Amino acid sequence: MNVDIGNALATVASPGVSRDSLERLDEQVADAHARIERGMANAEHGYEALNLPERVDPDEILTAVEPIADAETMITVGIGGSSLGAATITNALDSDTEAVFLDNVDPEWVSYHLDRVSFENAAINVVSRSGTTAETLANFLVVRDAFESAGVDWTERTIVTTGESGPLCDLADRHDLPSLTVPDGVPGRFSALSAVGMVAAAVCGHDLEALLEGAAAEADTLSESLFDCPAYAYGATTYALDGRGAGVNAMMPYAESLETVAEWFAQLWAESLGKDDLGQTPVRALGATDQHSQLQLYRAGPRDKLVTFVTPRNGGDRPIPDTDVEELAYLGDSTLGTLLEAEFEATEASLAAAGRPNVRVEIDRVDEYELGGLLYGLEAACVLAGELYGVNTFEQPAVEWAKKATRGLLGGGEFAETAAVAEKTELRIER
Amino acid sequence: MNVDIGNALATVASPGVSRDSLERLDEQVADAHARIERGMANAEHGYEALNLPERVDPDEILTAVEPIADAETMITVGIGGSSLGAATITNALDSDTEAVFLDNVDPEWVSYHLDRVSFENAAINVVSRSGTTAETLANFLVVRDAFESAGVDWTERTIVTTGESGPLCDLADRHDLPSLTVPDGVPGRFSALSAVGMVAAAVCGHDLEALLEGAAAEADTLSESLFDCPAYAYGATTYALDGRGAGVNAMMPYAESLETVAEWFAQLWAESLGKDDLGQTPVRALGATDQHSQLQLYRAGPRDKLVTFVTPRNGGDRPIPDTDVEELAYLGDSTLGTLLEAEFEATEASLAAAGRPNVRVEIDRVDEYELGGLLYGLEAACVLAGELYGVNTFEQPAVEWAKKATRGLLGGGEFAETAAVAEKTELRIER
Repeated sequence: MNVDIGNALATVASPGVSRDSLERLDEQVADAHARIERGMANAEHGYEALNLPERVDPDEILTAVEPIADAETMITVGIGGSSLGAATITNALDSDTEAVFLDNVDPEWVSYHLDRVSFENAAINVVSRSGTTAETLANFLVVRDAFESAGVDWTERTIVTTGESGPLCDLADRHDLPSLTVPDGVPGRFSALSAVGMVAAAVCGHDLEALLEGAAAEADTLSESLFDCPAYAYGATTYALDGRGAGVNAMMPYAESLETVAEWFAQLWAESLGKDDLGQTPVRALGATDQHSQLQLYRAGPRDKLVTFVTPRNGGDRPIPDTDVEELAYLGDSTLGTLLEAEFEATEASLAAAGRPNVRVEIDRVDEYELGGLLYGLEAACVLAGELYGVNTFEQPAVEWAKKATRGLLGGGEFAETAAVAEKTELRIER
Repeated sequence: MNVDIGNALATVASPGVSRDSLERLDEQVADAHARIERGMANAEHGYEALNLPERVDPDEILTAVEPIADAETMITVGIGGSSLGAATITNALDSDTEAVFLDNVDPEWVSYHLDRVSFENAAINVVSRSGTTAETLANFLVVRDAFESAGVDWTERTIVTTGESGPLCDLADRHDLPSLTVPDGVPGRFSALSAVGMVAAAVCGHDLEALLEGAAAEADTLSESLFDCPAYAYGATTYALDGRGAGVNAMMPYAESLETVAEWFAQLWAESLGKDDLGQTPVRALGATDQHSQLQLYRAGPRDKLVTFVTPRNGGDRPIPDTDVEELAYLGDSTLGTLLEAEFEATEASLAAAGRPNVRVEIDRVDEYELGGLLYGLEAACVLAGELYGVNTFEQPAVEWAKKATRGLLGGGEFAETAAVAEKTELRIER
């Protein structure tokens, strides 16, 4: 990926970061890079994620999915990091295989999906490191039962992606299911470029090697100066802007195929940096659509936002047919691609003209290689930002409270958290 | 809708609002309500939106859609307020008719959709008040051409929703197309309960009368005290919390069917209140999925957030099959609906336990009546908040700059804004 931080400079925007400040910050970047390199070299928890391009063997994934490679519908049962990376990749790329993600436990929605599945042509990928994630395991029990009810042996159509031990691991052993390992030391939100993110991509026929090669090329850019490394330039700029008031980071790809990148980024950013009362709030947006929804706020609301554009430089196109309507004649000479590009440039400039900071992240096109680079680059940016904030980038302790309370509410044990649920303070205004 | 603001009180959360402060604020609410009532009585621009339940005639819409009521695919061509209201309604409710929304000009994505359409069984609803919205008109030119190429006379399959004059109005006259009027004085983001939002719903077989009745029942609750009116309670609480530091409002429905409500709300909130450097930043979230993505940040990140839950009290359900895996046995006694409800209560309590403000918006179930009430209630909340902020709720001037620049880039005129695009400040870091 390439990054252009020109519109985040203090000469353009407020909040903005001066060139001088960036140069001072670059000394911290050098230290952080040394820490990151050490973490990678020692395969430390979390830092290990940045080693994935060289650790992951695409052939292992391809072999594991062989029994289900004919699937016309690939049902991934997982939530959070066990779903978003895979969804980001399969939603970005074309395939004749449909990828379905059961990442919620809404009963009507689960039934809606299962009612449409042709089970004999479908396969399951159940993903949970611990093998005990309530939402994932509940859905898995529902889905395998639906296969059985349709007269399809789920054990022939299931692949398991889980940790080295736990209920899912046992299940795979018991039923001799193909299984892949969630790599040790790699938090879910950093696992897109491992089996966690790539099983669905493999079944959908995407080029895993190219994904990893793109990521490896991005890894090669990691270096001690933000001025030499797009990922660090992005991470350092977001950190600097947050410190200057831009507590919100709106991720706005200009391509429908990259819509899920914004969602994946939102998890990456929120869970990694949102701790100790710190962290930018990621906002998911989409160009050009959100020009007619969010742009008013981005341009004229509080000066608390950075807008990050992600834009592919090349893509398909479609001509706009001519029209004899005079007011619209200018469109008839053009194409949808040209219009979308013009909308992007106009929006970027409109924010700059209003002194609102924004950053452009460019990729050449939406393919496996570029996508691998983009995901890796944003992950490295996040790790750098975590170093600069001084937070523990790779944990998510605040999620535990609700997990325990939920388990208790369902009769799965006694927890103090469950009791707290009943003590809710109410002030109800009813219709 | 019912609203519970207990977890936004200063006794629970920080930032939070004290009961005393709410009572003082209630005097401003009374004044604001008087202003709103006057605006409604005089059919003033914007305020007129709150009159829609009594102004809109569902039979007029049903008559207009009659020629295309057999459509199996309803393609709405519109963007922003010309699309989101309709999408919110059709995505929330079940239908055998597929509703497609072309609300972006991404060429590959438009082609993807058009490649799948059976044109003889499809219909077009083109929506633009001015009749000149670049994205909408470009897509309309593309879509009608695709109908022609498929040998289907688009003039037999198109309905137009537009203002009293303009190119789309002329087009409807020229080809004798059924057409409906974007109501005067109702900004796009407030038009869900007019023809703008209800044409697709009508073709999908939804009950327009029930939508309007639900909205009318909500309208009946508007009164001079926030303690008597759920909509005002919500609007006043968000305003008070924003003033106390909660500049972000994360809208988190606990139902997949309501996911688009969060998107619709994001436009409503952003375009209405995002001006004069004011306005909360709306964030779209989804329960339970985002517990595994955003909850870490909401619970442990900066104290700058309000989380708004939207939860239906009744819905379908699906049992979780039994399992002999000991760690998961507690799930086997339960249902997906019970699990989802427990996740919601646990998440709400987990935020309260961390002193993070949150508000619960409840509806009885997801049906037309309740949805009409929810949309109306949130609109009224927004209008009230606009009064309290003292902004011009019903304009969106900051969007114009980019529109002009885009038009200029495409050769549709000479604009100073276009020249500014070329002057971009660059600081590129390349791979």
